[in-house]
Amino acid sequence: MGSLMIIGGSEDRTDGKAVLERFVQQAGGPKAAICVLTAASTVPDTIWAQYDEAFAKLGAGNHSHLKVDERAQADAAGVAEKIARADGIFITGGAQERLIAATGDTLLHKALHEALQRGACIAGTSAGASAMAQHMLVSGKTELQAEKGAIEFGKGYGFASDFVIDQHFSQRHRLSRLLSAVAENPQLVGLGIDEDTALLIEQSTSIEVLGGGAVTVIDGRQSVSNAARIKDGECLEIVDVRLHVLPSGTRYRVGGGPAPFADLLQRLINIA
Amino acid sequence: MGSLMIIGGSEDRTDGKAVLERFVQQAGGPKAAICVLTAASTVPDTIWAQYDEAFAKLGAGNHSHLKVDERAQADAAGVAEKIARADGIFITGGAQERLIAATGDTLLHKALHEALQRGACIAGTSAGASAMAQHMLVSGKTELQAEKGAIEFGKGYGFASDFVIDQHFSQRHRLSRLLSAVAENPQLVGLGIDEDTALLIEQSTSIEVLGGGAVTVIDGRQSVSNAARIKDGECLEIVDVRLHVLPSGTRYRVGGGPAPFADLLQRLINIA
Repeated sequence: MGSLMIIGGSEDRTDGKAVLERFVQQAGGPKAAICVLTAASTVPDTIWAQYDEAFAKLGAGNHSHLKVDERAQADAAGVAEKIARADGIFITGGAQERLIAATGDTLLHKALHEALQRGACIAGTSAGASAMAQHMLVSGKTELQAEKGAIEFGKGYGFASDFVIDQHFSQRHRLSRLLSAVAENPQLVGLGIDEDTALLIEQSTSIEVLGGGAVTVIDGRQSVSNAARIKDGECLEIVDVRLHVLPSGTRYRVGGGPAPFADLLQRLINIA
Repeated sequence: MGSLMIIGGSEDRTDGKAVLERFVQQAGGPKAAICVLTAASTVPDTIWAQYDEAFAKLGAGNHSHLKVDERAQADAAGVAEKIARADGIFITGGAQERLIAATGDTLLHKALHEALQRGACIAGTSAGASAMAQHMLVSGKTELQAEKGAIEFGKGYGFASDFVIDQHFSQRHRLSRLLSAVAENPQLVGLGIDEDTALLIEQSTSIEVLGGGAVTVIDGRQSVSNAARIKDGECLEIVDVRLHVLPSGTRYRVGGGPAPFADLLQRLINIA
């Protein structure tokens, strides 16, 4: 069974490196074959250099740069083969729309799904985290209040079909943005991941929060809102959202966790 | 029946003045006797000058400064008599602990309760809003994450016994602070009031949100947290908080509002 690491951006790459260390471990340790996909970034070589150094310091002996800038490269057989041999794939930050424009529905994308199914660990940070959803949050212009029409969605990688993922969550004060997304799409559950924090989902087994922050879950499936009655730009009223804050150290195994979280735990564990 | 206006601070005093205009109206209009209590502030004359001008421009013909700096003044009969003749009492910002140190459990405080019972409107902004609770949020040192032991409580005026009130809510990103308060005190429901925004409670009748922002309600009465198992300074896990966001324009009459909000509406309407 594979695992997903959904990382809220700005994970430590130079000091403790706890999130990256766990990724290496999850991929299988020092001998694991690790690929770093930088397609979200406009400065892929700079980003790769950071991860190259970080993974080297963590003792990962077999890590390489998956440099893909356009769809033709993502559809080249060599790239898919590299992913097919990888134990861990790390998707960097940048812009999720750039990442998906270059790689969505290509052989690379197909290879990522196959990698997860055969037991690899796929990690995505910042843009790479958002892109893990089917309904990918691309941008949101809310400031302080939840408002209608503020969120732009795109088609993501689809590892998580029932969730909408936001990152840099507490640091960029994105509660209103995620509430806006959920008020208009109550069937999607919001996952707000803090910086230097990861939600690790081990398929069919457990979820765990690690790093320096928390994961905020915004469940609007029972909620009542005025979204259908107001115009774009107007403020959303939203009643009966279920909010869960899971700090670093939280770990729930299948069938465990607090009773009110049981249904969401089941959905998260089966995410991938 | 009296009314309470719980204002999140920084209400417009120079341009639209919508919140203050509504206060004047709620107190009875241009002829209403209005007192401005500045005891929360270290610069009471400066604050009074702002409200003096604002209320004059709003056509209030009978407004005066209730200048109280220490308990002896708050226990003087003349002050209580002034409140006894007031239709509206406006409690300014500053520091809630200063306000309560000077006026809590004095004749002034008793007169405020009597004023509400005989039908006056009591408004409090910022510190004046926080002080309306029985369990008054004095300070909270949380930054991005909810944590145990972060909140300091004091004894407030007690108009709202089941609620903990925070102000400047969205602008100062106080969700974690209010979640911290509620996680450790799940019997208290959190009210987060945005700047230039008021929650108007007309006793036994209705609640209304007015001004430029929203009221965020944090109901942890069903929640499950790790508060009892962790130490001060550690991060709180909190599951199954009910979150409600009520933007300006929301108005619920007794017996109305969305079904999941019915119980809280009842509590709010009977607050005073």
